[in-house]
Amino acid sequence: MTDAAAAEAVPEMSPRLLPAEGLPVGEPIDCGSHQVTEAEIVEFASEWDPQYFHVDRDAAAHSEFGGLIASGLHTTAIFQRLAATALYTRYDVIAGRVIRECRFLRPVWPGDVLSATAVVTSVELAGRGRAEVVIDGTLRNQAGAPVLEIEVHTLCRSRAT
Amino acid sequence: MTDAAAAEAVPEMSPRLLPAEGLPVGEPIDCGSHQVTEAEIVEFASEWDPQYFHVDRDAAAHSEFGGLIASGLHTTAIFQRLAATALYTRYDVIAGRVIRECRFLRPVWPGDVLSATAVVTSVELAGRGRAEVVIDGTLRNQAGAPVLEIEVHTLCRSRAT
Repeated sequence: MTDAAAAEAVPEMSPRLLPAEGLPVGEPIDCGSHQVTEAEIVEFASEWDPQYFHVDRDAAAHSEFGGLIASGLHTTAIFQRLAATALYTRYDVIAGRVIRECRFLRPVWPGDVLSATAVVTSVELAGRGRAEVVIDGTLRNQAGAPVLEIEVHTLCRSRAT
Repeated sequence: MTDAAAAEAVPEMSPRLLPAEGLPVGEPIDCGSHQVTEAEIVEFASEWDPQYFHVDRDAAAHSEFGGLIASGLHTTAIFQRLAATALYTRYDVIAGRVIRECRFLRPVWPGDVLSATAVVTSVELAGRGRAEVVIDGTLRNQAGAPVLEIEVHTLCRSRAT
């Protein structure tokens, strides 16, 4: 698609949603928390990541971690739900482009309460009416220890051009 | 944890699961396919990524893409399910460590049939009884166009040391 065609393809911005210029660069945003349950760990992984240490309590007892732990993808989904609800859905997001880095730092156990923080680290123009937004996210458990770090690149609508 | 303590912590390998040395490095592995439905797009995103262009058909009609598209995380989950079923669950995986790169290359639409391929690009010893395994994955739609590329680093048990 040419730049001109891309510009044509950008529909009118919804008046409800903020443009990329409104994002608070460099400011940590508290995105709230989520308690993980054993049922949720097993349900998510049974559908999307059926490895034994996520879905089978008895077999998981013999795993490296000695019990069921959440799928890394489930942990990522918890971050996404919290960040989408607190942040992304207020802005005029076009689409996610890349998860540049997503590190699973510690096991997530049944009963853990995970709290999400997001920091918009950059907003750069990416063609007429668009900006590429980079967000660094962290999920911490109830002890304050990070369990997930993620860098997400998203395309948002911009009013800057 | 010291190397000695780490070695102590590795339980006996399950006889059912293959060690990292069995992984076919450099050989593309067909992991099967999955048809995406509108109901699945809305259900997944309602729980994990409630942005309007994933959950609200009427609002999505006014989005960049002109209709509902799957969450990038949902697309990633489809890859994970196919790769876990065809590959990971045959090997003695300890845990995922990092998604180094996960690129959302094209929209995924209701009705798309996504096929997964995985290539083990490296298996390197990572302490006694362990190996770090790098997997490059691709999901293609029914037209053969890539919709997702992902690089996953996983820790597996090894018999090499």
